[in-house]
Amino acid sequence: MLERSIFQNISPLDHRYSISEKETFEAVSNWLSEEASVRACLKAETALVAAHLRARGKLDETTRRRLDKAVDTITPEEVYAEEEKTHHNIRALVNILKKKVPDELSPLVHLGATSVDILDTSMALRMKGVTVEAALPLLRKLELQLCDFAEREAYTPQAGRTHGQHAVPVTLGFAVAEYVARLGKSILEIKRLSGNLRGKLAGAVGAYNALSLISRDPEELERIYLAELGLEPSEHSTQLVEPEYLLRLLLEMNVAFGVIANLADDLRHLQRSEIAEVREGFAGSQVGSSTMPQKRNPWNSEHVKSLWKAFMPRVVSFYMDQISEHQRDLSNSASQRFIAEYVCGFCMAVSRMSDVIEGVGVDRERMLLNLNGGAGKGAGGMMAEPAYILLAESGLGDAHEVVRRITLAAENEGLSFSQALRREDDVWRRIGGKMLELGLIGDVSETLMFFENPSRYCGLSAKKAVAISAKYRALM
Amino acid sequence: MLERSIFQNISPLDHRYSISEKETFEAVSNWLSEEASVRACLKAETALVAAHLRARGKLDETTRRRLDKAVDTITPEEVYAEEEKTHHNIRALVNILKKKVPDELSPLVHLGATSVDILDTSMALRMKGVTVEAALPLLRKLELQLCDFAEREAYTPQAGRTHGQHAVPVTLGFAVAEYVARLGKSILEIKRLSGNLRGKLAGAVGAYNALSLISRDPEELERIYLAELGLEPSEHSTQLVEPEYLLRLLLEMNVAFGVIANLADDLRHLQRSEIAEVREGFAGSQVGSSTMPQKRNPWNSEHVKSLWKAFMPRVVSFYMDQISEHQRDLSNSASQRFIAEYVCGFCMAVSRMSDVIEGVGVDRERMLLNLNGGAGKGAGGMMAEPAYILLAESGLGDAHEVVRRITLAAENEGLSFSQALRREDDVWRRIGGKMLELGLIGDVSETLMFFENPSRYCGLSAKKAVAISAKYRALM
Amino acid sequence: MLERSIFQNISPLDHRYSISEKETFEAVSNWLSEEASVRACLKAETALVAAHLRARGKLDETTRRRLDKAVDTITPEEVYAEEEKTHHNIRALVNILKKKVPDELSPLVHLGATSVDILDTSMALRMKGVTVEAALPLLRKLELQLCDFAEREAYTPQAGRTHGQHAVPVTLGFAVAEYVARLGKSILEIKRLSGNLRGKLAGAVGAYNALSLISRDPEELERIYLAELGLEPSEHSTQLVEPEYLLRLLLEMNVAFGVIANLADDLRHLQRSEIAEVREGFAGSQVGSSTMPQKRNPWNSEHVKSLWKAFMPRVVSFYMDQISEHQRDLSNSASQRFIAEYVCGFCMAVSRMSDVIEGVGVDRERMLLNLNGGAGKGAGGMMAEPAYILLAESGLGDAHEVVRRITLAAENEGLSFSQALRREDDVWRRIGGKMLELGLIGDVSETLMFFENPSRYCGLSAKKAVAISAKYRALM
Amino acid sequence: MLERSIFQNISPLDHRYSISEKETFEAVSNWLSEEASVRACLKAETALVAAHLRARGKLDETTRRRLDKAVDTITPEEVYAEEEKTHHNIRALVNILKKKVPDELSPLVHLGATSVDILDTSMALRMKGVTVEAALPLLRKLELQLCDFAEREAYTPQAGRTHGQHAVPVTLGFAVAEYVARLGKSILEIKRLSGNLRGKLAGAVGAYNALSLISRDPEELERIYLAELGLEPSEHSTQLVEPEYLLRLLLEMNVAFGVIANLADDLRHLQRSEIAEVREGFAGSQVGSSTMPQKRNPWNSEHVKSLWKAFMPRVVSFYMDQISEHQRDLSNSASQRFIAEYVCGFCMAVSRMSDVIEGVGVDRERMLLNLNGGAGKGAGGMMAEPAYILLAESGLGDAHEVVRRITLAAENEGLSFSQALRREDDVWRRIGGKMLELGLIGDVSETLMFFENPSRYCGLSAKKAVAISAKYRALM
Repeated sequence: MLERSIFQNISPLDHRYSISEKETFEAVSNWLSEEASVRACLKAETALVAAHLRARGKLDETTRRRLDKAVDTITPEEVYAEEEKTHHNIRALVNILKKKVPDELSPLVHLGATSVDILDTSMALRMKGVTVEAALPLLRKLELQLCDFAEREAYTPQAGRTHGQHAVPVTLGFAVAEYVARLGKSILEIKRLSGNLRGKLAGAVGAYNALSLISRDPEELERIYLAELGLEPSEHSTQLVEPEYLLRLLLEMNVAFGVIANLADDLRHLQRSEIAEVREGFAGSQVGSSTMPQKRNPWNSEHVKSLWKAFMPRVVSFYMDQISEHQRDLSNSASQRFIAEYVCGFCMAVSRMSDVIEGVGVDRERMLLNLNGGAGKGAGGMMAEPAYILLAESGLGDAHEVVRRITLAAENEGLSFSQALRREDDVWRRIGGKMLELGLIGDVSETLMFFENPSRYCGLSAKKAVAISAKYRALM
Repeated sequence: MLERSIFQNISPLDHRYSISEKETFEAVSNWLSEEASVRACLKAETALVAAHLRARGKLDETTRRRLDKAVDTITPEEVYAEEEKTHHNIRALVNILKKKVPDELSPLVHLGATSVDILDTSMALRMKGVTVEAALPLLRKLELQLCDFAEREAYTPQAGRTHGQHAVPVTLGFAVAEYVARLGKSILEIKRLSGNLRGKLAGAVGAYNALSLISRDPEELERIYLAELGLEPSEHSTQLVEPEYLLRLLLEMNVAFGVIANLADDLRHLQRSEIAEVREGFAGSQVGSSTMPQKRNPWNSEHVKSLWKAFMPRVVSFYMDQISEHQRDLSNSASQRFIAEYVCGFCMAVSRMSDVIEGVGVDRERMLLNLNGGAGKGAGGMMAEPAYILLAESGLGDAHEVVRRITLAAENEGLSFSQALRREDDVWRRIGGKMLELGLIGDVSETLMFFENPSRYCGLSAKKAVAISAKYRALM
Repeated sequence: MLERSIFQNISPLDHRYSISEKETFEAVSNWLSEEASVRACLKAETALVAAHLRARGKLDETTRRRLDKAVDTITPEEVYAEEEKTHHNIRALVNILKKKVPDELSPLVHLGATSVDILDTSMALRMKGVTVEAALPLLRKLELQLCDFAEREAYTPQAGRTHGQHAVPVTLGFAVAEYVARLGKSILEIKRLSGNLRGKLAGAVGAYNALSLISRDPEELERIYLAELGLEPSEHSTQLVEPEYLLRLLLEMNVAFGVIANLADDLRHLQRSEIAEVREGFAGSQVGSSTMPQKRNPWNSEHVKSLWKAFMPRVVSFYMDQISEHQRDLSNSASQRFIAEYVCGFCMAVSRMSDVIEGVGVDRERMLLNLNGGAGKGAGGMMAEPAYILLAESGLGDAHEVVRRITLAAENEGLSFSQALRREDDVWRRIGGKMLELGLIGDVSETLMFFENPSRYCGLSAKKAVAISAKYRALM
Repeated sequence: MLERSIFQNISPLDHRYSISEKETFEAVSNWLSEEASVRACLKAETALVAAHLRARGKLDETTRRRLDKAVDTITPEEVYAEEEKTHHNIRALVNILKKKVPDELSPLVHLGATSVDILDTSMALRMKGVTVEAALPLLRKLELQLCDFAEREAYTPQAGRTHGQHAVPVTLGFAVAEYVARLGKSILEIKRLSGNLRGKLAGAVGAYNALSLISRDPEELERIYLAELGLEPSEHSTQLVEPEYLLRLLLEMNVAFGVIANLADDLRHLQRSEIAEVREGFAGSQVGSSTMPQKRNPWNSEHVKSLWKAFMPRVVSFYMDQISEHQRDLSNSASQRFIAEYVCGFCMAVSRMSDVIEGVGVDRERMLLNLNGGAGKGAGGMMAEPAYILLAESGLGDAHEVVRRITLAAENEGLSFSQALRREDDVWRRIGGKMLELGLIGDVSETLMFFENPSRYCGLSAKKAVAISAKYRALM
């Protein structure tokens, strides 16, 4: 009997993560497990029988039902037992199927097909299925959560950071909208590419040799066969479907994976003790560290990043599998089986990120504190840019250098930037004048208020956050 | 003076291959060298000045010409000298440009821009340029050569090979058509993606902070700026353009690279001493080996494969560069510079493959000899498949097993497959009858001729070769 | 209950290959499954209790037995159930262990340790165990098989091939000895590195903070703890053991993997229809292809190569896991779990290669036929090198060019190389004279025999094959 | 004439970085440029001539000098011009060398060698040279700087961080000692491996075929040849030296690269605006941002990380180059040339990191402020661990849970941890008592001082920092 304690499995996907991400595991397993593989091969084999019948005008509902029923009773165990004799998995499956279908259909089983006509076609079927029914729903859910998040925080000022240093202000919603836009486009691509996976019924070397002995129009028979499964034929086949249909889907999943890993990194760093602007949800009884009772670690974001490190490099294998000598060598056979792991790891990362966004807490107060630069020397340095711009606009040639000196002075003398700026009469007057002229303030006396409140310098942050969220919500 | 013997360079691209692939090197260098980079940044900077003027309704031809002229006199040497002071490459370039443009335009130089508004935009410009003007012409040339090759050999019978073993016959043109189809689709994708590279003028953190002090409609100004350069804006920017626009182009180049590497492998193996079906062109005075005077190695195909090994894994770097913390960290700066190497390596591989196809020789006689299986035992085994199919069609249940036994007998007794098959009266009769029924032969006496001539069993090889070539020739 | 049909697993390791490589799977699972992980953590925890007792002079056999007994009753299921409360795997394990040990030992459980003191230590334990008890035995078995193979075929002449082209002769044993030498050195390295894995008891940040409150000599306590497990301490720890101890072992496994993949490629190509010098063992009832009854594919060698494609690129993840911010970030946590997959995949490749070598058949007749170049034009071209060398030795300046012309003439006129060579009187005389002088022949009349028998030109092939096999047999 | 503006080069190594890292570029170019390659091949060719002479007892100083002189006059330009005729680089070099050496030595040039006997040998020579003369000096310099840094800051308290969160205290010197230990071991490995690179003189397929016609003891001649160059022979050769000698050196360089990248990441994050504990050196006139005058970015650390992203994944190519079919295929030829880029990129990263450490500034005040947790709620939470440990030591069973509750209370009520702890009379008394017992304090009244000063809880940080620095200073 082929049951085993899951704790004896090797892959973390099949033990630890099949528990912690139960739902995702099952959704993926339903398409990519070995059981699902056998099922999909059987589905392809019966589609072939159906296609032969349809091409001969003999396909009726009763026959179809009998075919489906035959397949329903076949277990992976049976197929594996037969394979011990044949040392060939598809031949094993065919032997069994032949016995289960009505006698008169038996000669049609696998007729004109080579193993890969079944295997590659069922691979397309499974990858399409897992994408449409497992990956895309998870991705859409995450995307919509991000839309909500971006809108909710569209107007929450936050320090914009470049090089890990305060740059100029943004809003949190704007920062999140980055991921809405990037992930959103990737989701649309994944959807498109999963709709373009291809099957084949072109025989041992792709030239329809055997099929030409059986059918007057082998390409038409191939179309009928694949249409039974909702697929189209590979433009050219060798023994294999052209590898690039699937490759591009995997590459795009890896693109989405990278976007999510980037988001994870951002969230990790925003949870640093010294920044503390966001916080992952934390169960009441949860233990952060076995010895440091105060710890509340961003472990879910870390987990997502770590999955990316485990799976991203596997694209190298996918690219290597493009190469198959002549009409095919088998050196893509084992490696291709591991695509299932990749897709599972990807889905688990999406799902975990979804949990993070679901429970994420925002400390708006702390965000404002950080934005204002704390009480430290050089506070408010983020307003150096508008000072420089306005000064330049006012016609001063070396505005950048002037302002740079002021920031250094502020720091050296322990002043805030606005204090240091205000000391420079001429500069202050020019800037105030320019602001008035631009309608940024109603009176020069408001100049100080502007420079003391970086949150007034968020540009189009909120507008972008709202617009992008609305767009992708509509698209999902 | 910044000249150097090319032989002191480190990168093979910059010494050895800049000679052996001179034309390709120059076409790529024209867009991706450091000189080209400085030139593109200057072009972006003047586009920005022009955009400011246009937004104010002040752009005229004279001004534009004066801008272009200012730029023409600037050398990379000047910029580098200035950078020694600023330690900042764009600030250096801006300082110099400000001095070269007419005084009244000086305040508009770089106005409202952050360095990356120039850098990322010019990167898009350069990558689009090198793709459209260097990569795509090389790819199209290769694709058309392959179309010719596939058509020329559409009817040339060849042993189809799976697992390195004779499988069933194809034609050489059909085998080549595989690459026409795969490469063709990739070329179309590369074209599409190179047309979707994006620039930005969204400032230090992507929120148009500075620009909002300068322009009533910063997004409109961004569009004008980019339109000057034939580009569109990134949907969302941080300090950086969304990385995926460029990433997808690079991934697709790597897809095409894989297709070409596969072709190289096929050609390498077809040149094996024991196969010898094709041969690379070889100059009269060329030396194959310094000690083995008889050698004529498939070194160009090997070279292409080797370039693939050197460059393919670099996609990992491209994926890593998706991640940039918050509104950007600089950890993609150096790594991104090496994209130039990747594109150059790719173009050189395409170009070399083009040379191979240009000069490839085909030994049709040898091809037929191999197809017929030589004089060896088991010759003609490739006809086992039609025997099995026809036998199965004739209603025999265990046709596969029957024919398998015949192939073993042929081998053990030193017979050709057709000899061994013919001995089995009942089988022979069934097969002949079926062939007659299918119209494959006019008389059962022709059965032998069929089984002695594998070239009669090429399926739709020729048809596919012709159709695919015609399609892609039209598309290029 | 945590049983599941193995066919519902995602990883091929946990379904298909756990059947086809049952023994290897179990050997690896015994160290790297989740159950093994829990067991190893418990072993580390009790070693810590023992270390505390030993440091206090209170460790006796009874206590140790009671500890072992406590651990024996703990199941992964229990630990996982507890983890649902704590959301922390080691805290869960500690909670359970505290309840199972004698009351007076309960306060010593996990005392002074942070989770990673247990986790990283048990990782070292497991990796050492799996290497010593699963990987090395498989590797040694393969190495000894290769030694046998190399010795058995030490004197079997074979065409030496460079660029896939006949070069000069070797013996098959010599070709195999390449792998004896390369794999042998890697095995010795793997052994060395597996003996240098390290554990730690240095606390949350590696500075023995907590331990300094508990022990006068925390480093001594760490040594005692690790000595209980047969390990030594990491030279410096953060929260983690220095990552390079393990990294180097994994890199070396990947080195061995590459050697085996190379061997697989060689065997694949030697099985090509046109070469056919070796053949994988094939079960009587085995089916090579579902439609081509004559096929006997080198699918095991292909399988090994394919595993390499699936696993080799994972070194990128291992290298990425070197980076952990400050005293550690958790982003190596999930990724590190997948090391188990890598080791399992590696062991399965070794085991499969062992099967291949076990059953490999050699066709010496065919080998000789190929060596002699068939009946084709230019046959015997492999003797161009000795002709050139001898001619040069005889004092002719442009010997290389002279011989190159002769090879071309042979080919163009359909002669064998020896025929074409013999026509050139002066050349022939010089060569014969030189051979006589060197003692290669006893009489100039033997010159022809030499040039017609490439097998007489195998250099030190046999000597190397024998010497290298003997050396590594002794070392294993 | 083969000069070219460096700004027309493609590789950043050959334009931008050859300026900014001039010294490193030259040190590397001296061994790995094409000019250096030609020089090394010539050195190998003359070593071969010398070996032939020595084997015949005819090598004298005059001859050697004449050989060296012949070589000195040969330029890469000449060799390239000749290669245009031969299409074979070593044959070209040999043709030229033959003309330059004294007539009587001409027949000895390249005698018995195949191209790769020269190429692979000179590759070993170059890689050894660049490692010993460029990489190792840079690495040693960096290591000694780190030793100084670790010692200088051995007693500087710093917040230990795990998951980006405050954990327990360390000292800065301890944190730096991590890199001393990790990098130190890697340096020793690099040295060892660079001393184990191998050459060969085993001919076209490694079996000494040609050499057996020339020498009675070809292996002895090989040893003499290689000894002239300070090398030893590959244990087994095909046409190639066993690839693993070089591979292991490259893998270890990549190990060191990872260590340095980790250090770069740590330094980047310690320079975040909110942390600000260290700062890269900054030239007076340097511009941090073209629009944000206040910025001082950690761009050198970012640069190092970015180089790692560009070069680390190239190990995949190195591993792929392990595979060469039969006695060699040429598919490692181009890819191997790019090793030069890798080594150069690695050396530049080491050199840049050295600059960073040279100029790094430490803000000890800020470090202490961060350690104490700022003025924020929950300040001093890092002392939760000792509280828990001491409480547990005092015999309390659920110490971890008790302290966890106290940290939550502190945070919720805006207290520091010590304040919240002190409120719990029983807990406070137990802890104080335990500390007294352990001799950590002289009087219970000191308990508060301990808990208010995390810097008193640094464990063995200083001791480790000092010991590790001393050890590796001695080893360098």
